[in-house]
This record gives sequence, structure tokens and C-alpha cells, in this order.
Amino acid sequence: MAGNTFGTVFRLTTFGESHGAAIGGVVDGCPPGIQIPAAYIQQCLDKRRPGQSDVVSPRQESDIIELLSGIFDGKSTGAPIAFLIRNKDHKPGDYDHLKDAFRPSHADFTWTAKFGFRDHRGGGRSSARETAARVAAGAIAQLLLNRSGISITAWVSSVGPVAIKKVVTVSDLKNIDANSLRCPHPEIAEEMLAYIERLKTEGDTTGGIITCLIQNVPAGLGEPVFDKLQADLAKAMLSINAVKGFEYGSGFAGSAMKGSEHNDLIEQLSVDKTGKSLLKTRNNYAGGILGGISTGEDIYFRLAFKPVATIMRDQETFDKAGNKIVLQGKGRHDVCVVPRAVPIVEAMAALVVADHLLRNKCLEV
Amino acid sequence: MAGNTFGTVFRLTTFGESHGAAIGGVVDGCPPGIQIPAAYIQQCLDKRRPGQSDVVSPRQESDIIELLSGIFDGKSTGAPIAFLIRNKDHKPGDYDHLKDAFRPSHADFTWTAKFGFRDHRGGGRSSARETAARVAAGAIAQLLLNRSGISITAWVSSVGPVAIKKVVTVSDLKNIDANSLRCPHPEIAEEMLAYIERLKTEGDTTGGIITCLIQNVPAGLGEPVFDKLQADLAKAMLSINAVKGFEYGSGFAGSAMKGSEHNDLIEQLSVDKTGKSLLKTRNNYAGGILGGISTGEDIYFRLAFKPVATIMRDQETFDKAGNKIVLQGKGRHDVCVVPRAVPIVEAMAALVVADHLLRNKCLEV
Amino acid sequence: MAGNTFGTVFRLTTFGESHGAAIGGVVDGCPPGIQIPAAYIQQCLDKRRPGQSDVVSPRQESDIIELLSGIFDGKSTGAPIAFLIRNKDHKPGDYDHLKDAFRPSHADFTWTAKFGFRDHRGGGRSSARETAARVAAGAIAQLLLNRSGISITAWVSSVGPVAIKKVVTVSDLKNIDANSLRCPHPEIAEEMLAYIERLKTEGDTTGGIITCLIQNVPAGLGEPVFDKLQADLAKAMLSINAVKGFEYGSGFAGSAMKGSEHNDLIEQLSVDKTGKSLLKTRNNYAGGILGGISTGEDIYFRLAFKPVATIMRDQETFDKAGNKIVLQGKGRHDVCVVPRAVPIVEAMAALVVADHLLRNKCLEV
Amino acid sequence: MAGNTFGTVFRLTTFGESHGAAIGGVVDGCPPGIQIPAAYIQQCLDKRRPGQSDVVSPRQESDIIELLSGIFDGKSTGAPIAFLIRNKDHKPGDYDHLKDAFRPSHADFTWTAKFGFRDHRGGGRSSARETAARVAAGAIAQLLLNRSGISITAWVSSVGPVAIKKVVTVSDLKNIDANSLRCPHPEIAEEMLAYIERLKTEGDTTGGIITCLIQNVPAGLGEPVFDKLQADLAKAMLSINAVKGFEYGSGFAGSAMKGSEHNDLIEQLSVDKTGKSLLKTRNNYAGGILGGISTGEDIYFRLAFKPVATIMRDQETFDKAGNKIVLQGKGRHDVCVVPRAVPIVEAMAALVVADHLLRNKCLEV
Repeated sequence: MAGNTFGTVFRLTTFGESHGAAIGGVVDGCPPGIQIPAAYIQQCLDKRRPGQSDVVSPRQESDIIELLSGIFDGKSTGAPIAFLIRNKDHKPGDYDHLKDAFRPSHADFTWTAKFGFRDHRGGGRSSARETAARVAAGAIAQLLLNRSGISITAWVSSVGPVAIKKVVTVSDLKNIDANSLRCPHPEIAEEMLAYIERLKTEGDTTGGIITCLIQNVPAGLGEPVFDKLQADLAKAMLSINAVKGFEYGSGFAGSAMKGSEHNDLIEQLSVDKTGKSLLKTRNNYAGGILGGISTGEDIYFRLAFKPVATIMRDQETFDKAGNKIVLQGKGRHDVCVVPRAVPIVEAMAALVVADHLLRNKCLEV
Repeated sequence: MAGNTFGTVFRLTTFGESHGAAIGGVVDGCPPGIQIPAAYIQQCLDKRRPGQSDVVSPRQESDIIELLSGIFDGKSTGAPIAFLIRNKDHKPGDYDHLKDAFRPSHADFTWTAKFGFRDHRGGGRSSARETAARVAAGAIAQLLLNRSGISITAWVSSVGPVAIKKVVTVSDLKNIDANSLRCPHPEIAEEMLAYIERLKTEGDTTGGIITCLIQNVPAGLGEPVFDKLQADLAKAMLSINAVKGFEYGSGFAGSAMKGSEHNDLIEQLSVDKTGKSLLKTRNNYAGGILGGISTGEDIYFRLAFKPVATIMRDQETFDKAGNKIVLQGKGRHDVCVVPRAVPIVEAMAALVVADHLLRNKCLEV
Repeated sequence: MAGNTFGTVFRLTTFGESHGAAIGGVVDGCPPGIQIPAAYIQQCLDKRRPGQSDVVSPRQESDIIELLSGIFDGKSTGAPIAFLIRNKDHKPGDYDHLKDAFRPSHADFTWTAKFGFRDHRGGGRSSARETAARVAAGAIAQLLLNRSGISITAWVSSVGPVAIKKVVTVSDLKNIDANSLRCPHPEIAEEMLAYIERLKTEGDTTGGIITCLIQNVPAGLGEPVFDKLQADLAKAMLSINAVKGFEYGSGFAGSAMKGSEHNDLIEQLSVDKTGKSLLKTRNNYAGGILGGISTGEDIYFRLAFKPVATIMRDQETFDKAGNKIVLQGKGRHDVCVVPRAVPIVEAMAALVVADHLLRNKCLEV
Repeated sequence: MAGNTFGTVFRLTTFGESHGAAIGGVVDGCPPGIQIPAAYIQQCLDKRRPGQSDVVSPRQESDIIELLSGIFDGKSTGAPIAFLIRNKDHKPGDYDHLKDAFRPSHADFTWTAKFGFRDHRGGGRSSARETAARVAAGAIAQLLLNRSGISITAWVSSVGPVAIKKVVTVSDLKNIDANSLRCPHPEIAEEMLAYIERLKTEGDTTGGIITCLIQNVPAGLGEPVFDKLQADLAKAMLSINAVKGFEYGSGFAGSAMKGSEHNDLIEQLSVDKTGKSLLKTRNNYAGGILGGISTGEDIYFRLAFKPVATIMRDQETFDKAGNKIVLQGKGRHDVCVVPRAVPIVEAMAALVVADHLLRNKCLEV
């Protein structure tokens, strides 16, 4: 059973290869009456695409989205929303030398082991290009979340060893889009950039960490016992290329704390205008989720990305026939994809929260 | 849409509350002809249950499993396998003082926010008691995996700040069951025990880290793009009570590495008797998964558990009506649940791998 | 991928064999706060069980339901509702002579072809006994539907060639439970009974037709394009043992009509207190569903049941080894199961409507 | 939870409205290595499209399929296969007079009741145009089934009151494509055509019946207890626009038979080259399925279609505001869609069988 669909009620199916005719997706389960401006989706896509700065790969894809269905007079109709992004700037010949090579730390070997052969052009379906469809669908999810005032913000908190050490406050968030690193602390962004530029001259690459904050999620989202909110967030995040770890709230550091320190003492329990009770705890080590269900406080989590596997150095490896070969480092490639992954993380988070917002409706009768 | 089912082809649905009549589960999708000895499942359950040592809660549940269906002449028939564990040693009255209290860092508030009310007896459905059903189902999954020679081993790698610092080798694994901490290094186990005993006298609790190793998984398991093997493992693990983080392969540390260090250079590409090609890389930083698909090398991951939320100290909190109350620390509770979580982690890993083993069959035609 | 789960939001998983320890089920997705009296479920089960009259098999199963979870203080909690019915009155030895036989028009051959072997005792999982779990779950669904005033009534409209020829009016429905045939026309019920008694003396069996009426379904239920309301009803009904056909509204007869006759001219379009518009058509040939979505008018459909395959006559057949054998007609068996299938049809209809009622909630945001 | 996806392992999601930019679909779960010639899919589509003869609507859609993904070097890769059919020959203005009208026996009222508003242009998503995506996906499914030698053939067995009365033999099937009625008996086809032409002059329409035969299905497909093969076929068929009934094997007529007549006595039980046992029964009243699992004999079923709802006569009806209006009969419309539905029935049958063929693989381990 294949795995190209994500979500249960708000559900995305993606398709397409890096160098096929197009990539795209179908969103099923979007409620009717949501305004879906194509321009907003395009803008989200533009944040993800390569060629935005010297930090990232100079491939110049325009990534123009075409909305094919499910929208009438600018609004969702309740029917599936299909969209398409044509692949333009590809030169299949570029990849002929990789046809039989198993590149280190790429999916070449595993894809071949599973399917018997693979579309080798630019990584085919295993290329991060597939995530453009996630960003488009995430934009639609965000338009749904806007109705409930839910906002999602992600940023780069480390690049290789260069990490934010101070606390990130809400007022720092406005800086995220002000630099190509998507880092809320401009001075750290500078350090990150310097590190990336040094690696570039060395033909090397790096990974990094993204932090994501989800605000204004109402208490009550998440489905015990298997579809806990953090479980679905973890799955969403680990399904993104290059992600190696996920932690929410106190995370790994929390495992070393004592219960008496870690317990989120309730400081306030108030009731809002709609009659919903609101929780405020001392530290929110819970990360906004208890027992798999949102508390109403901020949800936050962190993701580790491995270094980019394509380096500009020669590497020994094997081909399909089992022969040793030398893989030459050449072409256009990112030193660090973490800044470009920020909108992907936001998109996947939006898909999870939108799905759980709708799933929670099924409790009412 | 509720979330009490896990898996797609090998699929578990669990039910039951901590202090209801029983907990249990239904496994659907187990192929026919697998030997299912009740004694083996019972033995797995015995590893999880409380009351095994002075480290963990003295509650003396016998947790006797009853297999209700799907087995004939000792073998699975292809029909659903339902099983039941009666709740015996519960004294509902014990929990009356908690009826309206929102205990800090427990699911009391969120469960009430979501469902309007809750079964407050011993945590109801949010109790870790539900995981006994996972262990039983995981045992069935393991019996299936045995046919392919796949083995799963988890252990405690830290308790609070006390952590294994050396490399854990295959020969260390035999020590895991030799101590109540399920730690492969006996001397570290001693330190962990001392730390737990000190916390006990302080009425405090701690968290910890579990490492899990999956051996002999064939190359090719995992379904791109959303149901990547690591994505389903992450979801499985984050669905376990108290888990705050997941990392596989190089994990968070990998995010600080350079591509040239991190890349898993292929050292060998051989072919086994069945014609499958086998990979051996220098470091396996990939953690046995590339592009969401198993490589055939060892899969390994780490999980962070938060400290137990029930402490033997008085804590201020709120009740349902919004009144401040003082919660007294009393009763029988674990200082550290991490050793008891080892079989749960193994069970969830077995469910994921069994599911993907069967999902992968759908590629053949 | 096995098929023991029905529904998407209101979801039933059943388990158990005719002569195993027990049969039962798990209902996941029942919203919290619904009163679930065990006595009501028991009463529904009592309608289905054998031994009610001389029409049906004299097997005396008491079929006592035990509710295991998901109910607290008499109300659903939102957690899965598991239930169990122990098998009591079975004598496994009774079936030894059938161990290797492939009985004509039974599932013996196909079950063996699929799974390699089978639990031959009383049909194992392919026995109609499994439907007791459907009736129990359907009773829970009906308790949910009661909140919306939705009612479901099924009756026997033919037994073999003996059929109701008059129109069945709402006032006839009160007669259904007044006779063992569950036929709303007492004089036809007499004829049916006479026919069955004649067949009994001949050692023969018969089939029949059930009609089902669903009243007060609000307009708007059903999910185009694949999960049309009639599509899910058809699946539900064809999943019942012995059902060979399904038609709704004008059905097969409608295929011979002209558009000008068949079109349901709208006679009235009014608005109810809640602001919902109500449709009234001249003939409701649509059967209460247009474009896969309920119109708000009565939903009605008919089901064909084949004759009982176990007859009290000797039949030639084959065993597993391919040898010709003679199967002797003996034991306790129904001449006609159609009256006993009435509560099963109602239960499956309730499951479908409850599921679609909850699915429809996902459109609101 | 929306319903635009069909199948579990071999899974189709469709999208698109009659007068939007395009319709299309995504097939997920097609195994790798299947030859997928675009020309074959196009040919299947051509059988469904309007404008083929004077029997059906003269709308001249070219319905050119574009395959977007999942195919490399002419073969499926295991990745999702997305395809697109642009809408060309639409004049949205044509439908302005229908904007607020609730046409009798159309989905206008129900679609509005469910979603609040609707894309009224040509029926929007409720148009039968959506079925073109099913035909394309069914063609892919058929290419998969070819590997197992499974063939699917449907034909028109009645148009209004004009019905085939003789037995249809295998040798008659070659006549199906020889006439525009898709009727295997040429002389009956003539009568059907005459009937349709008379209705045309009267501005009236008719329904009809399609029979479908599936040959060479191996024994063992179908998943008890809910996903019985006939249950999934029934759902598939009732999800097709205008279908009002489904019966398989002996169907409704079987309900009037005696067990002694109806029982399928086994005439032969042989073993084929692969070691599979083959069944041959006297009458195959079972329709090739027992206990929800295929027997290996021919599967056959019949479907009732209601008359086309758009007639060329004036009809009184209501608009959205509740005003009585007169709907004029004008435009281009089919008198009888049943011949055009033949490839849709074949496509849906192919999707069901392909899905169950792959589902059955999950039993092997």
C-alpha cells in the first residue's frame, strides 16, 4: 500500500517527479466557502523555491501554480482542489552520469531495492521538489486555519554548529523574513551566512535545526491514543526529506529534568467569550499538548536536518552492477537547505492542524 | 474521527480504560499460518507490568491475556485476533479526590476540554495501562517478523542525567534483561538505580532515554513520500505516553555535521543467496533508512521520556470549576517509567515493521 | 489488507468465530455523552438470535452482551466501545464430519483457497453468527441517530415466491413485530409461514426479500463522488451473508421507465424551523437520494437473500482432497433466515447513516 | 470526510468539474513495471465520450488524456500516476438559466443543501463527466489485470422495456462493439435503437440495464467480512451516476428459488499447473463469489440505470428562493446513456478487482 496521501479528513495526495511533466496535488476535504486566492498560494511557493539568494541553489524554477478544480467564484466548493506545477527548467541529460550510480546518503539504492528501477533524473520522486506540492496544500490549509485565528511560524535556529543561544521572543519573529537565513536574530543570521559561505568554498554542506511555533490552537485537538497531536506532527515532520529528529515542548532536555521542575503548574484557568476554558501554565514544558490533545497554549517543536548529501567533492561509491566508481562533485546544489525548508515545515504543520480541527468536529452531534 | 487504530495492513485497534472492566485490542491483517503461542504474549506482557521490582510501581496486576479469536490449532487463521486483559487490582474509590482536579502535566484538562467530561479513575483511557494492549499486539507482530529473522531490541540509555557514555555493542545487549533498569551497562544501571532511589526519598520523579535497534530488516521497506519508514516510526513512538522526542540515525547531532563527514560512504555492495543486494556503509549515520526506505542496515533511534507527572509532593492546581486547590502527593507511583517502557517501544516498533513488511507485498504482481 | 472494519468516522471492527471463545466488536468514533443502555443493545440482539420461533433454527444461544469500555456513568465517553458475546451453546464435535468437505454454496472452498485452511467449526468466521456484533454496534449507532430523530424500519416483503403485492403504508409498520415473519401484512405472513412449513417437511429452504425504510434523514448526507449514500448502503447490505441484490428508489423497475414518468417533480419546497429547506416530490422515485446526497425525503431500498444453503437432503460434493463425497442433511438449521436478517439490515443501515451524519460535520468550520 | 478516493491498495482519487479547467485523477498503488501505453488509455476514453453516434449527446469533447507522472520509459514506476483531461468544448453561458433552478431528479437541490452553494455549470462535479477519470484509471487497472489474464466485459442487456431475452453466450460478446448500443444481440440492438429514436421525437428519455462479466479471476479474492468482493463491487457500481440497483449471480430472482434448486453443486474440482484448485459448479448461481471471496468461476452482475433526468419537455419546478418556475427542455442531451456507461462499468469493475488482487498479496509472508 503506497504512501502518497497525508491526513484523514483534510487530505493531501501528491504526485510528480523532479523531471517529469509536472508535480502537483489534490486536497480533498477542504470545507466549502473558504476564500482561496491563487496569489497567496503562489506567494507561499515563492518562499520555498530555489534561486532566492546566494545561500541556496541557483536553479531558476518559476513554479507557477495552476488551480484545476474545487474553486468557484474564488471560494472552495467542497470538491477536491487539484493543482499543478509544471516542471520547466530541467535538462534531463544532466543526470545521465547518475543513471546507475548509488550516490552516498541518497535514496538511489533504496529506491532501486524497492521498485526494481528508478526514475534517476534529478532524484525523480525522491527529490525535494515534491515538497512544493506540500507547500501549496499547506497554504490552502492555512487559509482554513485563518478562520480560527491559528498562526504557524517556523524559523532557522541553527545552521551546522551556529545556533541561536538566546530565547526567541514573539517580537523577534518579525525578523525572520528579513534575512535569507530565516533566522529571527539578525546577528546570528550573519554568522550562519559566513559559515555557509566558507563551506561553499570547501565544496561542503551542512544541516541545521528549525523551530516551529503554532499559536492560538484551541484546546481539544488531537485524537488519543494513536493519533495524538504530537504523533501526527512527528510523522508529518519526519516525512520531510533530510529530517532526522523531532522534539516538542521540553524535548530531549526534558528527559533529564525532575518531575518537580518539569511539571507545568497551572497559573490561571479562565474562560473566554465562547465559554471555552483557557489554561496558562508556568513554563509550558508540555509544548501545548497533554495526553495527545492541545491545551490551548503555544505548541512548539524542533526539527533536525542532516547535511545536504550532494557535495562538490569527488566521492567513491558503487553502481548498480556492484562496480566501484568515483562520483564527481559538480552541478548546482544547496550548501544548506534548512532556510528553504521553513515554508515546508509550516505547510506540514498547517496540514496536521487543519486535519485535526476538522476531525474534532466529528465529536459534535 | 477518532484515533484508536494503528497501522494500515497489519492493524491494531485498542480499547479500554485503566479502571473499566478490561483493556484489550483487535489485530486485523495478520496473515494466516503464524504460530501464536499465548505463553509468548503473556511473557511480553509480564515485562511491561508494574510490580516487577522496587524501581517501579508496586501495583500488582496479573495482566492475564485471553485470546478470543483468529487462532485455530495454535495458528493465526487470517481472521482478526482479539484479546482481552481484565482489570483486577483497581480500587475506584482511590481516585475520588481527583474527580474534578486538573493535575499538572496530566491529561485531565485536555481530556475534559475535548470530550466534555472524563472517566477520572486512574487516568481512564489516558492511562499508560492502555499500552498493555500494544505490547500484546506487538508480540503478535514479532511472531510474524521472526519468519523474516527481524529482531528488535530496546534499552534504557539514560535515566535523568545518568547516561551511558560508551558505545553499546551487540555483545552488551545480553545484559539488558539482567538488571531492573534494562540498561546494557551494569555499572551505569547501578548509578541509575541509586539516582532513582534518591528521588524516591525526595518524592520526586525523573525521565530518561530509550534506544531501539532493529536488525535484519530487508532493504525496501517504507512507503514514500508520506509513509516513510522513519515517519511511521516517529508517529508510533510519539503516540506512547510521556515521549517528547524522537531521533534516528545521526539525529540532532547530525544537524551540526558537515556533508563530507556525514555521508555514508558505501563500503560494500554484495548480493545474498536470494538475489537481494546488501549494502554496508562506513558509519550508517542514515540509521538504516534512506529516502524513507530501509537500506538493509541496522535501524536505530532514540526516544526522550519526560519525568513522571505524579510526584509525592503537594502541588497547587485548579479544579474544573476554576478554584485553586492543593493536590496531595500520595498513592503508589513510579519514580521512573522508562525501564517499563522498553517493551512498549519494542512493541510499537514491531507493529510498524510488520505493517511495512506486508505493505511492501502489494508491489508484487 | 483485511476487511473487518466498517465505516470511516463511526467505525466498527468485528471479531470472532462461530465456535471460538466469543464474538464481539469495537465501535470507535462514537461521540461522547450518548446514553448507551446495555438493556437496549441486548433487546436488539434478542431480535436477531436463533430460537425465537418454529420458523427459525432452534439453537438456544443466550447471546448476552458485555460492554467492556468507552462507557462511564451510562454514557459514551468518546473512547472506543468494545463489547463481547461469549459463545456458549456449541458442540464442536458436531462439525467434525464437515472438516474436509466443501459444502455446496457455502464458503468452505473459497475460505480454504484464500487462507490455506479454515476454522471449520460451524462456518468459523464466515458464519452468520458474526452479524450479532453488527447488531450490537447498530444499536449504538441507532442511539446516536435518535438524537436527530432518524428512524430505521425493515421488514420482510417476500419469502420465496410469496410476496406482498399491496403498498406498505406507515400504519402497516406496527404489524411487523406482531408476527414471527416480520411481515407488515398479517395475512401474507400466514402464507409465508405455510410456505416455510411445507419446505420444512421437504427438507428444503428458501430465500426472500427485505425492504428497509429510513425516515427523517436530513438533506445533505452522503459524500460524492465515491462515497455516495446509496453506494455505502449497497456495500453495507452486500456485506451481509446471503444478500444477492440491492436496489433503492425505483430500482430495477425504474430502468424500464421513461424520464417523463420517472422524474420526481418537486411539489413543495419549504423551510423548517432551523432554516433548512425541505423537499417534497411527487413520487420520490429517487428513494431519498440524488447525486449521492440525501434529499430529506424517505430513503428506501430492497435486498434479495438467496435460499439457505444447508438443506436437509443428501447432496453430492467434494472434499479437500478432491474426492467425491455425499453430504448428509442433518442438524438444526433455518428454512428461511430472512426474518432474522431484519435487525441485521436495520443495524447496517444505522451504521451507514451514523457514519455519514458524523462525516458531514467535517464540512463546518 | 470527503469521498473522492476509491480503493485501498490500488487507489484512485478524482477531481474536476464539468466546466472547470480540467478533470483528472491520481492512481496510487500501481505496482512498478507495468507497461502503460497512453494510446490504450485514450482508446478506453474514446469509448466513453459523447458524440459517438446519433444515440448519444452530440457534445464534441476530444477528451485528450495527459499523463503527468509515475511513468518512466513507458512503464509504471510505483509512484502515483496522475492524469489530466482538459475541458474544451464548454460554453458556461449555456447554463446561466440553471443557476438557481433545482432541476427535477438532478443533484441541484442536494448539492446546495450540503455545500451551501454549487458550481452550476453543467452539473459541476455531479456531472457524469467525472466518470472520464474513472475510465482512465480503470484502463490502468486493466493493464495490471492483463498480467493475470483477467478480462472484463460489459454490455447493454436492456434499454427501457426492450430487453435481451435469450442467453448471452461467450460467442455473442464479439458483437458488443459492432453496434452503437453495445448490445451483443444485433437484432435486439435494432429494436433498442428504434425505441430510442421514438423517444427522441417525443423529447423523452429512458434507462436500461447493463450486465458485466469478469473472467479468469483466481479463487481467493475478497476480504471478509465487510470488504466482501460483491460488497466492493456493489459500492463501485452504485457510485456511478444514475445506477439504481445491483444484483450478482442469481440476484433478485434467486430469492424466490428453493435451496435444493439454487445450491451450486460442485461438478469438478481440479488442480491447475500452479497448484491452485479450480472449481466448476453446475449453475454458478453464486456468480463466482461465495462468502465474499471469488470461487474462480465467472463473476457476473447486473446494474439498473434510471432514465436520463434532462428531458426535452417543459417541466415545473422550484428555484433556490422557493419560487415556482418552468424549466424549458433545450440543449444537447442523451436520450439514453446506458451504452456510454458500458466502459464506466468495466472501469469500476477493473478498479475493484485490481484492488483486491493487490490486497490479497498481504496474506503472504
